[in-house]
Amino acid sequence: MKLQIDINCDLGEGYGAYRVGNDAGVMPYITSANIACGFHAGDPMTMAQTVSLAKRHRVAVGAHPGYPDLLGFGRREMQLSSEEVMNCITYQIGALQGFAKAVGLSLQHVKPHGALYNTAAEHEDTSKGVVGAVRAFEDKLIILAPPNSVLARVAVDAGLRVAYEFFADRAYNADGRLVSRRHPDAIVKEARKVVERAVRAVIEKTVLASDGEVVNLGEVHTICVHGDTPAAVTLVETLKKGLIQANIEVKPVRSLI
Amino acid sequence: MKLQIDINCDLGEGYGAYRVGNDAGVMPYITSANIACGFHAGDPMTMAQTVSLAKRHRVAVGAHPGYPDLLGFGRREMQLSSEEVMNCITYQIGALQGFAKAVGLSLQHVKPHGALYNTAAEHEDTSKGVVGAVRAFEDKLIILAPPNSVLARVAVDAGLRVAYEFFADRAYNADGRLVSRRHPDAIVKEARKVVERAVRAVIEKTVLASDGEVVNLGEVHTICVHGDTPAAVTLVETLKKGLIQANIEVKPVRSLI
Amino acid sequence: MKLQIDINCDLGEGYGAYRVGNDAGVMPYITSANIACGFHAGDPMTMAQTVSLAKRHRVAVGAHPGYPDLLGFGRREMQLSSEEVMNCITYQIGALQGFAKAVGLSLQHVKPHGALYNTAAEHEDTSKGVVGAVRAFEDKLIILAPPNSVLARVAVDAGLRVAYEFFADRAYNADGRLVSRRHPDAIVKEARKVVERAVRAVIEKTVLASDGEVVNLGEVHTICVHGDTPAAVTLVETLKKGLIQANIEVKPVRSLI
Amino acid sequence: MKLQIDINCDLGEGYGAYRVGNDAGVMPYITSANIACGFHAGDPMTMAQTVSLAKRHRVAVGAHPGYPDLLGFGRREMQLSSEEVMNCITYQIGALQGFAKAVGLSLQHVKPHGALYNTAAEHEDTSKGVVGAVRAFEDKLIILAPPNSVLARVAVDAGLRVAYEFFADRAYNADGRLVSRRHPDAIVKEARKVVERAVRAVIEKTVLASDGEVVNLGEVHTICVHGDTPAAVTLVETLKKGLIQANIEVKPVRSLI
Repeated sequence: MKLQIDINCDLGEGYGAYRVGNDAGVMPYITSANIACGFHAGDPMTMAQTVSLAKRHRVAVGAHPGYPDLLGFGRREMQLSSEEVMNCITYQIGALQGFAKAVGLSLQHVKPHGALYNTAAEHEDTSKGVVGAVRAFEDKLIILAPPNSVLARVAVDAGLRVAYEFFADRAYNADGRLVSRRHPDAIVKEARKVVERAVRAVIEKTVLASDGEVVNLGEVHTICVHGDTPAAVTLVETLKKGLIQANIEVKPVRSLI
Repeated sequence: MKLQIDINCDLGEGYGAYRVGNDAGVMPYITSANIACGFHAGDPMTMAQTVSLAKRHRVAVGAHPGYPDLLGFGRREMQLSSEEVMNCITYQIGALQGFAKAVGLSLQHVKPHGALYNTAAEHEDTSKGVVGAVRAFEDKLIILAPPNSVLARVAVDAGLRVAYEFFADRAYNADGRLVSRRHPDAIVKEARKVVERAVRAVIEKTVLASDGEVVNLGEVHTICVHGDTPAAVTLVETLKKGLIQANIEVKPVRSLI
Repeated sequence: MKLQIDINCDLGEGYGAYRVGNDAGVMPYITSANIACGFHAGDPMTMAQTVSLAKRHRVAVGAHPGYPDLLGFGRREMQLSSEEVMNCITYQIGALQGFAKAVGLSLQHVKPHGALYNTAAEHEDTSKGVVGAVRAFEDKLIILAPPNSVLARVAVDAGLRVAYEFFADRAYNADGRLVSRRHPDAIVKEARKVVERAVRAVIEKTVLASDGEVVNLGEVHTICVHGDTPAAVTLVETLKKGLIQANIEVKPVRSLI
Repeated sequence: MKLQIDINCDLGEGYGAYRVGNDAGVMPYITSANIACGFHAGDPMTMAQTVSLAKRHRVAVGAHPGYPDLLGFGRREMQLSSEEVMNCITYQIGALQGFAKAVGLSLQHVKPHGALYNTAAEHEDTSKGVVGAVRAFEDKLIILAPPNSVLARVAVDAGLRVAYEFFADRAYNADGRLVSRRHPDAIVKEARKVVERAVRAVIEKTVLASDGEVVNLGEVHTICVHGDTPAAVTLVETLKKGLIQANIEVKPVRSLI
């Protein structure tokens, strides 16, 4: 059988008059959209437009819930109890599902944003809040998580489907974690390299760490790309073509798991 | 057939550490709860708790969406386009439906809050935003509206079910509108009078205006009471008993329309 | 004596991760900065940076307070009482003065933003709120207002100094008002024309309306330019040079009144 | 010379329609008011009213800045850099100073709120943000801090005046820290005991820890009481009378340091 992969991207991250990224430019080349839900970014108008845009391009829609911290764009850790996380996620998934329902769609997945993603990846309490919300709301929703993360384990234990995520444009450490954004070499900018890494992750299930070591990724279901850089559109287009040329089928994650 | 009526009340109107009203005290005596959805009041924790409380008392849950104005508690008119109203409502209905779904419930109704209710009652553009959101989300949802209002007409024209609302604890003008809250006699405080007015509204379909004139209400499906006064619990309890004694059945509005 | 004029521009209108405009590019060519104060835009980090940038360029700093509506960027009319307007302005002026004081500056002026500016220009209640706040806080602060506006009159009556403002890049109607932004010809984009209009406003105290009629402006103290378009820097630079070539001195408004 | 002490209380912690505490009831018995500044609580109307109320009672006003987290009432730790803390504090001090200036007052002190207070008490980075903001804004402002805290040390090192605070209605551990609020005996409710503890803290500079051990407090300049409980007014009144009966003068902290 042909190898398959999903390409996901964070979209709808503007707020009111503030616009970020090039959602319309990126949408034709991705298969799953993580849509901001109003806490770290996103607002009702932006959410409606992003869901419509995704529908037009037959891109699967997912919720991208964050901490209630618009000022910090959800990138600052906040001390929330497991129950607070759960209810913040339920609220945001529900709100996005409202827009999806209004145009005849259903959510495919949930991917926590920023500090919430990082905290859930490592902490039991936070990941239980995320997983509890998803399971109670709709247990067919797929959770996007890093391979070998606490979030992935808690989700699997709860009987949920998990898609393992590879960051094609981010450098990895030898321990399998992402190089911190503060490091000058954290981002892989060259499109050719991003494609190479993505193809390798899908076919060989490995990535070359910054120090040259080969890191085992295990199964990878979806490749995350960033849509908020000037070169984003070209990079995503190149990535999709490169994957197809490598004989890998690019399709929404729900058809891979 | 026995006469029937619904009793609705605005609940879940706290925010974080701020608490208002006595939701637990009022819940046993009402049949429909209008739950704040996070824009004029309400937050994820409060919404989860209020939905659970309603479920425990078999009270039907509805969305109580407001303008995005927590500082003004949704009581200030805001210049929103029809599309902005629509998307603000979709967001809030969706968010509340998330909590309802998580405990196995579905929303029964939608009742706009404060300035949004008043504006929708009189303006075509705003009411089209409300009705458009409800219809696209779930056309079985009932809209609570004043009799003879623009909102009621627009909702009926769109094929939605409308429940006509009577405010038992508010004084009416001879033209059928509520006496402004700024007027000292705007609120009917005596429980006995509230019951009398409610019974009359259900049986005779009329209310006595401040000037003594008899105002024709037409069909009334639901009686609104306020839960945020110290005497609220006693008043709601008295109202329910009074209606039952008058041989009127008190039940959720979805079973009356 | 040589003719003199001020050039003012709205700056610091980002919020957290959201950036708008090219503040650093525009700053060298203006003499007064209207800095957003956190209600319609702006946040503590952005305010601190914008005040420092202005200081470095010896640009006079002023408060640019707006309605408490980040989602609407302060462009939506809100029903605030005169007292609510007053306290919202006091809060925002005070907050900005905090950052000015921290680097040894004092505020020069106050210019309401967006819908608050438009409402204050026409309505007594709102302009009394603005003027009341400024007078109580510091009666040497200059208020920027349209010529012949209610705001200007109320400020003058209260003994405050008023700077009359001309919008060099906005089309005017024959009645002296700005052509609505919804009209395709609302914005004057050609730098050469913007300069011509500015020079004419300063020297002849008139502007040519869209229909060709000559509109009397009266005394003009400051020219407003917009910093949030791609061509803003070139336009402002061209404007400043054009004014100087026309033998008009460009300097902060406090030295003109 | 007669012993002297200040009584401080957190006030103005409502938000819009939400009211908490009994500010008017407590004000006659305190000498310093810590007024919320709009981030964890407080809004322009509430701030204006609280400053006026304090003025009427000749109570010294101080800023009570918190984390930007209204939903969490400033009680949740947030990951802010030292510079972010500094700018958040500058913004809030400035805003409150606006209201004070408008009625002819100046701020006496700054007391961080909730999680910001706790974090500043223990962490260098956060306390440097607090101290940096206060020093740049106005170096005569007094910082309220726990004795032996990092915040107190950093403030003293920066040349600022520090008032050491004793919590008369909170239980202490043997190490001089407050018993966590989660512990059932964290709060001392009996007015008589609160008085005893306050008098002892002032005269003997000690407090009895929960385990009976005598904890050395060192110099104490101000006693914190809470105004948001039903019994608050009686408790504060009793405290003030008890201190006076013990021949201790109760006056604003600026006259003690």
